[in-house]
Amino acid sequence: MSNSIEQLISALCCLPGIGPKSAQRMTYNLLERKREAGLHLAESLKTAIDKVQHCTKCRNLCESDLCHICSSTRRDQSLLCIVETPADVLALEQTNSYNGLYFVLMGHLSPLDGIGPKELGIEQLRARITIEIKEIILATNPTVEGEATAHYISNLVKNQKIKCTRIAHGVPMGGELEYLDGNTLARAFLGRQRVTTNS
Amino acid sequence: MSNSIEQLISALCCLPGIGPKSAQRMTYNLLERKREAGLHLAESLKTAIDKVQHCTKCRNLCESDLCHICSSTRRDQSLLCIVETPADVLALEQTNSYNGLYFVLMGHLSPLDGIGPKELGIEQLRARITIEIKEIILATNPTVEGEATAHYISNLVKNQKIKCTRIAHGVPMGGELEYLDGNTLARAFLGRQRVTTNS
Repeated sequence: MSNSIEQLISALCCLPGIGPKSAQRMTYNLLERKREAGLHLAESLKTAIDKVQHCTKCRNLCESDLCHICSSTRRDQSLLCIVETPADVLALEQTNSYNGLYFVLMGHLSPLDGIGPKELGIEQLRARITIEIKEIILATNPTVEGEATAHYISNLVKNQKIKCTRIAHGVPMGGELEYLDGNTLARAFLGRQRVTTNS
Repeated sequence: MSNSIEQLISALCCLPGIGPKSAQRMTYNLLERKREAGLHLAESLKTAIDKVQHCTKCRNLCESDLCHICSSTRRDQSLLCIVETPADVLALEQTNSYNGLYFVLMGHLSPLDGIGPKELGIEQLRARITIEIKEIILATNPTVEGEATAHYISNLVKNQKIKCTRIAHGVPMGGELEYLDGNTLARAFLGRQRVTTNS
């Protein structure tokens, strides 16, 4: 096997979920049949890594100083949704059910990995919370770290007159109770809501 | 989502087995945490695509005119193993059980896809088959196309005084007869060999 092939295989292993065997398959596939697509991929990688930075307001990934959500005048400036990653913003945007602003932590509190309030831009978040904001929606993941992060942020805004909410945890749509873990089921019971009948 | 992020996601979809969702995950992972690895990947892609060509003797992928197997003096010059892809060469080399030369078809006969003898370099193969070669080992895949390709090549050398063999088909090591398909089992029966007892 030639040197540059070996190097490409090991470089592809940096992609999440790609091991040596998949990387080898990708390398041969690119070199045998998709050289143009490969060059295009190399170009796209460089361009994206050169251009993409963080939005100065919400820390989301974008190409300019302000992302398209922060610079939009059509968004509800009184709602602030706090998420862990840019992928979460995308997932929420795709639901078309939220029209407020975001703040991206780029991670969650994880002291053992050296990720504290400073790394999550909590100072920047504090500066973001002005009189304009009426509600903060905590949409961190329902993991131990995500819950801890949500708890930490809710403590920050406790003394201010801002409504602080957490996204609902419970049975996912289309799921079956039988196959759900006990933790989720317990949360679904705790969070039960009164049925409103239209009669 | 910014333009160059979208472009990177769609460019990553050219990799085999990568759909939009995995490509999105890779993109965010690279941009959030692995920018250096991403640049290295872009560089490796370019280098490999620029440098890697086909060995003029065996058609395998390599950086020079002759690959390291064809240019080696330690290989048995009288054995020629015919495989479909460079990945097959690698797999055979890793078994450490073959010390001859290779010829890589870069595909198999598939008239419907426009792949005929010309695309597989059959002329080049014919030129390779000199008096030096004593045995040709057909190691194409045991698929319909692979079998047809093996049959075609065996016809080519029929009239020459060259031994032409096909790799054995049968029960894979560690497999269980109970779960094997009937076709393989039938081949294993047809290809049964006399047990040699050391007594």
